[in-house]
Amino acid sequence: MNYTAHLDTALTRLHDEGRYRTFIDIERKQGQFPHAIWRKPDGSEQPITVWCGNDYLGMGQHPDVLAAMHQALDATGAGSGGTRNISGTTVYHKQLEAELADLHGKDAALLFTSAYVANDATLSTLSKLFPGLVILSDALNHASMIEGIRRNGGSKRIFKHNDMDDLRQQLQSLPVDQPKLIAFESIYSMDGDFGPIEAICDLADEFGALTYIDEVHAVGMYGPRGAGLAERDRLMHRIDIINGTMAKAYGVMGGYITTSTKMADAIRSYAPGFIFTTSLPPAIAAGAAASVRILKRSPELRQAHQTQAAILKTRLKGLGLPIIDHGSHIVPVHVGDPVKCKILSDRLLEDHGIYAQPINFPTVPRGTERLRFTPSPVHGPREMDALISALDALWSHCALNRAELTA
Amino acid sequence: MNYTAHLDTALTRLHDEGRYRTFIDIERKQGQFPHAIWRKPDGSEQPITVWCGNDYLGMGQHPDVLAAMHQALDATGAGSGGTRNISGTTVYHKQLEAELADLHGKDAALLFTSAYVANDATLSTLSKLFPGLVILSDALNHASMIEGIRRNGGSKRIFKHNDMDDLRQQLQSLPVDQPKLIAFESIYSMDGDFGPIEAICDLADEFGALTYIDEVHAVGMYGPRGAGLAERDRLMHRIDIINGTMAKAYGVMGGYITTSTKMADAIRSYAPGFIFTTSLPPAIAAGAAASVRILKRSPELRQAHQTQAAILKTRLKGLGLPIIDHGSHIVPVHVGDPVKCKILSDRLLEDHGIYAQPINFPTVPRGTERLRFTPSPVHGPREMDALISALDALWSHCALNRAELTA
Ligand SMILES: Cc1ncc(COP(=O)(O)O)c(C=O)c1O
Ligand SMILES: Cc1ncc(COP(=O)(O)O)c(C=O)c1O
Repeated sequence: MNYTAHLDTALTRLHDEGRYRTFIDIERKQGQFPHAIWRKPDGSEQPITVWCGNDYLGMGQHPDVLAAMHQALDATGAGSGGTRNISGTTVYHKQLEAELADLHGKDAALLFTSAYVANDATLSTLSKLFPGLVILSDALNHASMIEGIRRNGGSKRIFKHNDMDDLRQQLQSLPVDQPKLIAFESIYSMDGDFGPIEAICDLADEFGALTYIDEVHAVGMYGPRGAGLAERDRLMHRIDIINGTMAKAYGVMGGYITTSTKMADAIRSYAPGFIFTTSLPPAIAAGAAASVRILKRSPELRQAHQTQAAILKTRLKGLGLPIIDHGSHIVPVHVGDPVKCKILSDRLLEDHGIYAQPINFPTVPRGTERLRFTPSPVHGPREMDALISALDALWSHCALNRAELTA
Repeated sequence: MNYTAHLDTALTRLHDEGRYRTFIDIERKQGQFPHAIWRKPDGSEQPITVWCGNDYLGMGQHPDVLAAMHQALDATGAGSGGTRNISGTTVYHKQLEAELADLHGKDAALLFTSAYVANDATLSTLSKLFPGLVILSDALNHASMIEGIRRNGGSKRIFKHNDMDDLRQQLQSLPVDQPKLIAFESIYSMDGDFGPIEAICDLADEFGALTYIDEVHAVGMYGPRGAGLAERDRLMHRIDIINGTMAKAYGVMGGYITTSTKMADAIRSYAPGFIFTTSLPPAIAAGAAASVRILKRSPELRQAHQTQAAILKTRLKGLGLPIIDHGSHIVPVHVGDPVKCKILSDRLLEDHGIYAQPINFPTVPRGTERLRFTPSPVHGPREMDALISALDALWSHCALNRAELTA
């Protein structure tokens, strides 16, 4: 067997398609975010501004979050030392779960090491809990949901992205007494468009389906207390299971679901991805809890975030760039070709010290490659000016007219 | 649809079988481990000694590990703010990967959020990289390996635990030109027995198979530099992919594989579980790197660990308890019944302040329920005496003769 040949084939494919990824090695300086240092492959360093992070509100450098983490480290040590069931449940985990259940107005919350694992473990376990379950899944759902839905070979139906007619038709075609779950996102993170939460809840009621929402790119950022779009739209009580992350707007790490006590009890009892892994370090749980607590009472930060996003979108439109604007905080600029996308990103980084990773397949469908900018309250006018003038120069210099690029 | 009825059924089954789990909520006191505080369901507190943690060497409270974490928090903030490909690769991740590759004498290492995810993501991706791959999997492999092997519906063969005749027969029955991988562990964490690494490598050579080893319960603890049993037995170079955790002997959190540059490149490019999730917080990577560095030059700690385990086993045998002794640091006491196991654990905790979680199905096969003690260099003679006399009293008090309990 020539195993190396197979690896070569797999890697060559990526190079040929222009979507081989190299890590950009950066060091954020606490207190100076979005400014950071880029450690180049040759070992030299260059100051850069990060424009593609998911620490959307800069909470990863909030003094109270860091203080909570320092304190927990001093109080209790580095790791939890065990799985949740075997010595790895601490008061920090309990407190964070209570904080999250309260945030979403649910009876219970369950922590996972990431929202990826939360999606994967929960969705795959639901198929075991409800024999015959069919999961109706939005076509643009995140990889972690897809993996969870696929994992146990359960029954699934993909409905067209945000297409309620298609979803209705598919629901209609299923036996009335078959258990059903509709899985979708509140914000699709690569396009920045919203899921039709209310319409989905209505269909779920009509057809007796459970609802599962991924609010990973919304928690902390939308709703009066930062519980996400279901909170903003007063729909949290109509969703059976809400999934979120502590690694994006909350600035730390870890994922969770919130749901009924009984559902949480069943998931924690049956999901291998919950049971068979070391729990989050207490310091991580402490930092995340602090962040959730702070953002529950920081509507001004959410407002500042939206304002920055609106300004950026207005200015990019002013340049005539093909941005995708669905009214969220995510600002994708359509490129449509992996090689061009990589070149634009390289030039931004090397010539302008602006870091925006090219977003290529499999993160987005082929032909929809893009640059994706994530403005935040800590990206000030100076950073915004630098970004706008760099993009302007680059679009002109590349002698690509602004329409051509979108081709 | 009555979804609640399904949840009730699932939960009732656990209660009926006596294997419904309740979290024991503890707070470790930094510097006092294995001593901790048990927060009871009624809110009251009781001091306890943790005897079932996986922070085997007490590294979770090592001052240099904590210092590295504090320092990284101050230097760079709480979370990484992105996936590895999109702004979440930092110098801390790079340094830890270099440290781990060096530890195992490999060219490359890849971090994952846990060893669970490392196993799951890597094994499921190998099936994609090597079309037609069949994975030969030890019958007692950890849930995370099983999930990875199953995930993509790839071809798999289970061989009898540690049974080289069975493995040989299965290899013989496969077409010569079919890609093959043998997946196994170096220490099976619930029994504490060792995998026959050399014999498996020999068979792999003979039949042209790749080798994949989980050293999660060995890294930090075995081998001259703590690289595990493959290091101790000078076999690291014969293993294609080594999996380990930073969450047990290293006392922090996170998992990894080490392998060839090309294999790592392919896994990081194709594994959704690597690509689509926020990377570990820099402080976690910094703490883990410090721990790995320290344990590379701490044979005396490994010696102390083995000594403690040997003493505990000798003393338990002295009591006539049915312990399983395979010569490792893991000390299981066979009970063989989930309800008895839970009662013993409850009595130890409530009456003696000794915390050893009952280990029931699905963590171990039904009928092999056990208590599992994990001695460490920080479990001194005082803690050991207390454990021994508690077990002695309990076995007598329960009026179970020492043979009966194993039934
Ligand atoms: C054999 C084995 N592999 C992998 C894991 C997963 O490690 P982690 O806790 O880092 O997810 C565990 C336990 O948690 C284990 O016992
Ligand atoms: C929609 C969505 N769900 C889930 C995840 C996973 O979150 P985490 O980084 O906590 O694993 C991500 C991104 O990483 C995401 O974009």
